[in-house]
Amino acid sequence: MSIKLIYASPDQDANLLYWSGMFTCDPFLAFEVEGQCYAISNVLEIDEMRRNSKFDEILLPQDLVDQENQRIIDLIQRILEKFPRHDLVLPKNFPAYLVLELQEQGIKFSVIRDEFLPERSIKSPTEITQIREACAIISEAFGRVRSILAESEIRNEFLYYGGEMVTSESVCAEIARICFERDAIAMETIVACGKDAAFPHNRGKGPLKANEFIVVDIFPRLIKTGYYGDMTRTFLKGRPLEAQVKMYNAVRTVQSLAIEQIHAGKNATEIHENNIKAFMKLGYPSTDSTGFFHSTGHGVGLELHENPSIGERNHCLQNGEVVTVEPGLYYPEIGGVRIEDVVVVAESSAELLSNFSYEWVV
Amino acid sequence: MSIKLIYASPDQDANLLYWSGMFTCDPFLAFEVEGQCYAISNVLEIDEMRRNSKFDEILLPQDLVDQENQRIIDLIQRILEKFPRHDLVLPKNFPAYLVLELQEQGIKFSVIRDEFLPERSIKSPTEITQIREACAIISEAFGRVRSILAESEIRNEFLYYGGEMVTSESVCAEIARICFERDAIAMETIVACGKDAAFPHNRGKGPLKANEFIVVDIFPRLIKTGYYGDMTRTFLKGRPLEAQVKMYNAVRTVQSLAIEQIHAGKNATEIHENNIKAFMKLGYPSTDSTGFFHSTGHGVGLELHENPSIGERNHCLQNGEVVTVEPGLYYPEIGGVRIEDVVVVAESSAELLSNFSYEWVV
Repeated sequence: MSIKLIYASPDQDANLLYWSGMFTCDPFLAFEVEGQCYAISNVLEIDEMRRNSKFDEILLPQDLVDQENQRIIDLIQRILEKFPRHDLVLPKNFPAYLVLELQEQGIKFSVIRDEFLPERSIKSPTEITQIREACAIISEAFGRVRSILAESEIRNEFLYYGGEMVTSESVCAEIARICFERDAIAMETIVACGKDAAFPHNRGKGPLKANEFIVVDIFPRLIKTGYYGDMTRTFLKGRPLEAQVKMYNAVRTVQSLAIEQIHAGKNATEIHENNIKAFMKLGYPSTDSTGFFHSTGHGVGLELHENPSIGERNHCLQNGEVVTVEPGLYYPEIGGVRIEDVVVVAESSAELLSNFSYEWVV
Repeated sequence: MSIKLIYASPDQDANLLYWSGMFTCDPFLAFEVEGQCYAISNVLEIDEMRRNSKFDEILLPQDLVDQENQRIIDLIQRILEKFPRHDLVLPKNFPAYLVLELQEQGIKFSVIRDEFLPERSIKSPTEITQIREACAIISEAFGRVRSILAESEIRNEFLYYGGEMVTSESVCAEIARICFERDAIAMETIVACGKDAAFPHNRGKGPLKANEFIVVDIFPRLIKTGYYGDMTRTFLKGRPLEAQVKMYNAVRTVQSLAIEQIHAGKNATEIHENNIKAFMKLGYPSTDSTGFFHSTGHGVGLELHENPSIGERNHCLQNGEVVTVEPGLYYPEIGGVRIEDVVVVAESSAELLSNFSYEWVV
């Protein structure tokens, strides 16, 4: 049997947040053994953690070692003594200095280069509710973005709302405000127009323009629980060219086909490869930096990007996995289109956790 | 000469954020050599990073290795080949799996168990402006907390504001709102009353009560730059007992004496020990969990808790270091008092970066 051990802070480590169920900022030791989860807190935090965390037991360092030996390595040694005949297992991001100290002490351990807590991939009903809630917040924000675009006036090629020029920054701020009002933090939001939209992670800058694609990618985190939602819609204010209509429809078609292919047991890479082929067939070839050149999707949960990936790494989809489906096309001459939803994998289909119209011309 | 190398994401690693100057969520390699800072981005991020990050140069993996060898370890090997006769130096939180891979490849490295970027401790004028701004936001929030308390009505022992009961949660929400309006995120805010206040990191829960200490500790992070402010004030709504007045005054006296002792060249531990002695003299002895049992202060910057510490670890204060000064007293029978300000160490004194009245009875 094994002892899984983490030294981190839940603010910065999703595995530890999964165990603790609450955000705290300072690092501490936690471990799982024989189905029980333990934390070793300090005297400042213990009261709050006993009240609000999900750990089965919370110890103080002095419960394990005397006052003079409260180094992390001493605590680890004591834990191993308490659970003899157990292997020490560490996550891939375990701190380097502790790795070296374990080696110096001759303590055997193994580092999991894959998922440390594979159970995180399969979402519980409670987790699915959280992710659905985060996506509902995004939908509200999209509603507001669309109404800003709808009510904007076009002067020259620029948009004016309530007399003010509509910019990437002003729309981002409005999105952040809506998310915050619903207890979620939206950072690094993308509102990218025209040429900016041709780069998938370009966050956008300056005035939005009429008759150009506007890619809006929102991925807020719930303040209380730490779960993310992640959705993208592409809008256009004004009148699209035929080429824009064709490109938008291609992305929507491919996204829809991809979602239809999802079910437990399906090879995720196959879906991704089918998307590339479908885009080819529709007349959209790809290079390293144009066309469709990112993965089809990624897991979402306590991390924005977590397992599994729908891309080049082979993976067989499982019941309860929550993933994004977000094909996109990017060409410098015309801009970019990405449409992203979140689904939970079910026995014979995918259930949408996100819900917002695909009408894109405003 | 050395190559300092990080593999992390700026969202989760303050050293990397210090280099990059912008938040991004996915991990990447970055290194500093011969005074230049490099990032190895991926094709999705490079556009945004070239535009907004502080790196001197941003490379793509394919600039270093061919498509088949884009593992992190291959990239590190290539970097070392590009800069021969340089030692590889890693931070203490470098990921375990890469440590093992470096060892397997026979690549020599050293792990810095102390500060990886000691220059981070000495704040530039720009950084000081950021921290001052974060503290100004806290002051605004304190102003609001005080006006809520002032305008509250006491019924039985509880407080009512605009007809609603005033709770730890309602005050926290109002603090978060004010911080957000000024582009800062306040998480894990403490509004702890009565018995809750006797535990330094108890965040508080439920109704606030009249005639009890209310410890309010706010530490927002600026959304744009990532700098923190950190201030604590203790309030009391109603009429304090003599014992409460004496305890409050003791903490304020000790804090004020501590700030007076700060200047470049001063031993931080000496200040901390003087605080313990001063509390003793004033009639406030300490144990492991009562009295004054945490450190006097900590560095503040891109991390809430960073170097240097004003506590048991010996440290000679330096010009430009930014630290909190936050003595407190905690006794289960009477509650807790903590008063916290942020100062920058100067040649012969400490300059306050935080500014809010110490009037505490509302």
